[in-house]
Amino acid sequence: MIQCPRGTRDFLPDELEKRRSYEGILRGVAHRFGFREIETPIFEDAELFILRSGPGVLKELYNFKDKGDRDIALRPEMTAPVIRAFVNGMGSYPKPIKVFYFGQCFRYERPQAGRYREFFQFGAEIIGSATPETDAEAIAMAASMIKSLGLKEYKIRIGHIGVLRQRIADIGVPAERTAEVLQKLDKKLYDEARPILRDIGVADADAEALFDLTETVGGTEVLDKVPGEAGTYLRELVGILGSMGVEDLEIDLGVVRGLDYYTGMVFEAEAPVLGAEKQICGGGSYTLSELFGGEKVFSTGFAIGFDRILLAMEKEGIEYEQEGIDAYVIPVSDDVRRDAAVIVSRLRGSGRSADIDIMGRKMAKALKYADSIRARYAVIVGRKELDGGCVTLRDMKTGEQREVPADDIFRGV
Amino acid sequence: MIQCPRGTRDFLPDELEKRRSYEGILRGVAHRFGFREIETPIFEDAELFILRSGPGVLKELYNFKDKGDRDIALRPEMTAPVIRAFVNGMGSYPKPIKVFYFGQCFRYERPQAGRYREFFQFGAEIIGSATPETDAEAIAMAASMIKSLGLKEYKIRIGHIGVLRQRIADIGVPAERTAEVLQKLDKKLYDEARPILRDIGVADADAEALFDLTETVGGTEVLDKVPGEAGTYLRELVGILGSMGVEDLEIDLGVVRGLDYYTGMVFEAEAPVLGAEKQICGGGSYTLSELFGGEKVFSTGFAIGFDRILLAMEKEGIEYEQEGIDAYVIPVSDDVRRDAAVIVSRLRGSGRSADIDIMGRKMAKALKYADSIRARYAVIVGRKELDGGCVTLRDMKTGEQREVPADDIFRGV
Repeated sequence: MIQCPRGTRDFLPDELEKRRSYEGILRGVAHRFGFREIETPIFEDAELFILRSGPGVLKELYNFKDKGDRDIALRPEMTAPVIRAFVNGMGSYPKPIKVFYFGQCFRYERPQAGRYREFFQFGAEIIGSATPETDAEAIAMAASMIKSLGLKEYKIRIGHIGVLRQRIADIGVPAERTAEVLQKLDKKLYDEARPILRDIGVADADAEALFDLTETVGGTEVLDKVPGEAGTYLRELVGILGSMGVEDLEIDLGVVRGLDYYTGMVFEAEAPVLGAEKQICGGGSYTLSELFGGEKVFSTGFAIGFDRILLAMEKEGIEYEQEGIDAYVIPVSDDVRRDAAVIVSRLRGSGRSADIDIMGRKMAKALKYADSIRARYAVIVGRKELDGGCVTLRDMKTGEQREVPADDIFRGV
Repeated sequence: MIQCPRGTRDFLPDELEKRRSYEGILRGVAHRFGFREIETPIFEDAELFILRSGPGVLKELYNFKDKGDRDIALRPEMTAPVIRAFVNGMGSYPKPIKVFYFGQCFRYERPQAGRYREFFQFGAEIIGSATPETDAEAIAMAASMIKSLGLKEYKIRIGHIGVLRQRIADIGVPAERTAEVLQKLDKKLYDEARPILRDIGVADADAEALFDLTETVGGTEVLDKVPGEAGTYLRELVGILGSMGVEDLEIDLGVVRGLDYYTGMVFEAEAPVLGAEKQICGGGSYTLSELFGGEKVFSTGFAIGFDRILLAMEKEGIEYEQEGIDAYVIPVSDDVRRDAAVIVSRLRGSGRSADIDIMGRKMAKALKYADSIRARYAVIVGRKELDGGCVTLRDMKTGEQREVPADDIFRGV
């Protein structure tokens, strides 16, 4: 028996209806925030992702040569494709450009709870603006999305990669070794960072002060300890977010976001209910367009791990009620099948969701099927009632039945 | 500058909003017909598509080996994946199972008008039922979808592959050469079919009668000429469709649908406005599940070429009106930026789509931007008005301005 490939999933109707409903909530928030959707191809020139993340990214890409010998990769994320699309076709659009996306991404990694090889990301980018207000828009929308989904416990942590980069430069780490140091700081591997910094010639006291800085975590009051321009920037950002009603924030200068391309503000949201793999959202401000052949343009964006946040909601016990359909039409005998077809078509034409027995089932079985597809009403079409212009409407919950006009079944219901 | 791969497209916001709107219409029809959505992975074991279509399919697949040495292929269509998902996880569901899907499919072929390497299909399958009512459901829904999109000129042609298969067997073509003959009939290449049939030993008169059969085209009255069970079946089907209000049908026994896996009724819809590449929809009844390791289950399905039907609509001059947003909030000076942030958040919280200047623009430029994003109103936040609890609401179409309460901007609008 052929199965779906490892790390991928089939979404059957019950599960998918739930996912679409939550997707719809995220779309609604994006629309209210004035973001518009953009869609890019499932695969790109592999070069795009190498330019963004370095050749190391290849080991976790689904990459291959197409029949025209092109190096192709299934997208592992959607920021690079969106910025490529911007460079190719939206350069002259009035700024800021506010776009969101939702779709499949692909990473060849070991599947585990909440981590799939085909996974779904919902994200947004604000292209062409580099103000605290820009970052506030992104964070406020992420917060609104998490809240709108109904997730009860979550934490948003805001940092500034500029603070760390500045400090790293100040204590004498050359540019070409910054990534190496940041990588250790990202994972709080201070014991591994120490020999590297010593090797570079950084004084031990400076190294420890750097570690302290990445441990600067707390309410917005810790911003008093954040030096320089970045501190001023973050205070302004937190102020705007306060005006927007986003107040449950934590400052965490240890937010590095891997070896990513962020330049200034960075943020993450996590759901503690998920345990070790608790991150549900991440983003920040960056520039990428110049890597793809465009002018340098500042942007801020974030992505929500859709599978991950749904897992968190499930673990919090958030329930979803399946929708069902309005009516299931059952012809009692073969001689009324055509009449039943007329009736189901009329119901559909009037905007109702309606289905009809197509297997010639007897009443008991047909009612059982109607129940299984969550029909709210069964419309029972019998010869005798039909001759009087009527059909029988059965409330599937209560079992109550009554005769109603065949051409106006739901009048008064 | 990196472009999107050949044969793929970026959908920028204006275009995508239109596509989503049309997708929503198709989703609405599917829902009213009692179909529920299913989603399968973007890629599958390549074997799945070889089982369905034979190894010849490989030449037009995007297939590759993943890092675990699996033979993988991007899906070229979604019926095989849906039936695989049925075999894997829906075998015990009450029948019939009515599902629809929408998503990207991939074929490595030369891109041309309306034909892309990444293209979109909207389709449906009714699994586990083999009655004329089943086929009627599928055809009626396809017709309703085409009509709901507003396409003015289209033709639905219904055939029956069983009629041809029976006749081909009757005149002495052995089973292993049936595909070869059908392939020529599909393309109406009678001159190429003649030597094949002669080689098999079919009498010339029988060959010509076979060609005549595939040329049986016309209104439902030509059904009188269709022999045997298949004729009876098609007459019943057309009768049910009549009850469902689907009457603009053509009978065409020449509909073969390539070398596909159909067993009985087959149908196609075409939009003449598209010229040579006019097919917008195709389907029929089939069995596939037994190929994928399940029991043999009868199904009927169809797929709409989403890109193709949109192209037809465009060629017919069907226009789409972009949506825009409700309000664009403009702070007149820096000292009211926080107040403006409060206002935009309040509008969003009340369900309005609202945006705010994040670039500190002067009034004229901000209004120009509001216009470019199709804001219906500009909300101008000035110090003086704000001190009186008011803001200025500007109708972006008429330019008319009036003072409104800051905490209830859209009262009476």
